[in-house]
Amino acid sequence: MDTSKADQGRSAASKLLAVLAAFEAGPDPLMLVEIAERGGLALSTAHRLVAELVSWGALDRRPDGRYQVGMRIWELGQHAARELTEVAHPYLQDLFELTRRNVHLCIREGTDALYLERFYGSRRVPMVARVGGRLPLHPTAVGKALLAYEERWFRDAYLAGTLERRTAFTITEPGRLDRELRQVRERGYAVTMEEIRLGSCSVAVPVRAQDGSVVAAIGIVLASQESPEIRKLLPALRGTAARVEDALHRSGPVQPRPPR
Amino acid sequence: MDTSKADQGRSAASKLLAVLAAFEAGPDPLMLVEIAERGGLALSTAHRLVAELVSWGALDRRPDGRYQVGMRIWELGQHAARELTEVAHPYLQDLFELTRRNVHLCIREGTDALYLERFYGSRRVPMVARVGGRLPLHPTAVGKALLAYEERWFRDAYLAGTLERRTAFTITEPGRLDRELRQVRERGYAVTMEEIRLGSCSVAVPVRAQDGSVVAAIGIVLASQESPEIRKLLPALRGTAARVEDALHRSGPVQPRPPR
Repeated sequence: MDTSKADQGRSAASKLLAVLAAFEAGPDPLMLVEIAERGGLALSTAHRLVAELVSWGALDRRPDGRYQVGMRIWELGQHAARELTEVAHPYLQDLFELTRRNVHLCIREGTDALYLERFYGSRRVPMVARVGGRLPLHPTAVGKALLAYEERWFRDAYLAGTLERRTAFTITEPGRLDRELRQVRERGYAVTMEEIRLGSCSVAVPVRAQDGSVVAAIGIVLASQESPEIRKLLPALRGTAARVEDALHRSGPVQPRPPR
Repeated sequence: MDTSKADQGRSAASKLLAVLAAFEAGPDPLMLVEIAERGGLALSTAHRLVAELVSWGALDRRPDGRYQVGMRIWELGQHAARELTEVAHPYLQDLFELTRRNVHLCIREGTDALYLERFYGSRRVPMVARVGGRLPLHPTAVGKALLAYEERWFRDAYLAGTLERRTAFTITEPGRLDRELRQVRERGYAVTMEEIRLGSCSVAVPVRAQDGSVVAAIGIVLASQESPEIRKLLPALRGTAARVEDALHRSGPVQPRPPR
């Protein structure tokens, strides 16, 4: 690619956003040349934009010369989705105290479950997801709890896509997944058994807004051999969802975000 | 102000960042006209840039027509400061379980204590700070624990500035604050007694990187009448800082961020 012409015809704003997007692949710091490459920008353009972003605080230049996302972006991001996490936090903490299990809160973003909060102590089961991380909907309990209550057209579109196989136990057959989602709606909770990671199982329940729409899911991850515990954990999980729902309804209607 | 000329002579990138900066004042959604006003932009410019940011996912347009920070910024922000929060999280959770007190993790950003993590259940003491929020250094225990270990020139500059009075008990006399900071270094912990909020007291200890520099502070907030508990909480607080430090040292040197 002739990078000297690579960024012609794009708006300055879109180039700046391309620099930020270069950092979305992962937490690793990037060299200027990597930023330019990922953003499809001429090196000189990337250099100028990176300097502007560093001076604003969106990026930090590390002593080794590489760049990473700056705290100003982290702070700005705290204004997104704050209502749900602020409202839910104390009840999730109570659930963690009660169960001493890995507890997490997720929403749907596109075709992924996005992890907003995690609660875990130092004696934890390994978990695949991190805060800010995403996992597909079909192999996770939180994902199934979110997907099950989506509108028919969305579920159909998801089932028609590629259902990535994460382990030998991931459900990748559309018909079987559809039946499982119906079961989730009938029972009011979702489970997985080694579908995202061998050795782990999980259970999740939906959280509803005042209009009945599902806005989030609360899940617990366990070691596979503890799967008989799931039945005992359900009352606490359901009680927590109900407390979060009550608190959400008291704090006013959650503004649904437009689908992306 | 003649807004039609307001944004002349500024780079397109700086105008885009001005739109984002408009959202820093607080979590409330903004109307287009408010964004233009705060960013010092012509309405037509603000309109075009906001549309670009919405299509990228940096902003969301709500059903009521106002705008808020989008989840893509939140996700991007999770790549900043991840190491410290990921490493510290399980030990802070353990501290919360042990003490059942409001626990928080802060770093210094400029002349503020920035709150990275908070742990609290539903039976909590009211706290001033929220995650992503900032408080001045001098009236908070975490802030004093951070300020006490800064270099002499930084402490002097802070003491020479305006020491905002938050309550009748806030220490606003530079000489007295300087003596208190010396005491923090001698004792290895900082306390406040109703200095940020009547009815609350707090205690905090520093967290050191492998090179001995203080990179964070861990604090606990209590109701004022519980202040005799502070002495009993200190061993757990110090033990937690030591565990976080061990884990940080194992995970490799923390890259110091440039001062801002």
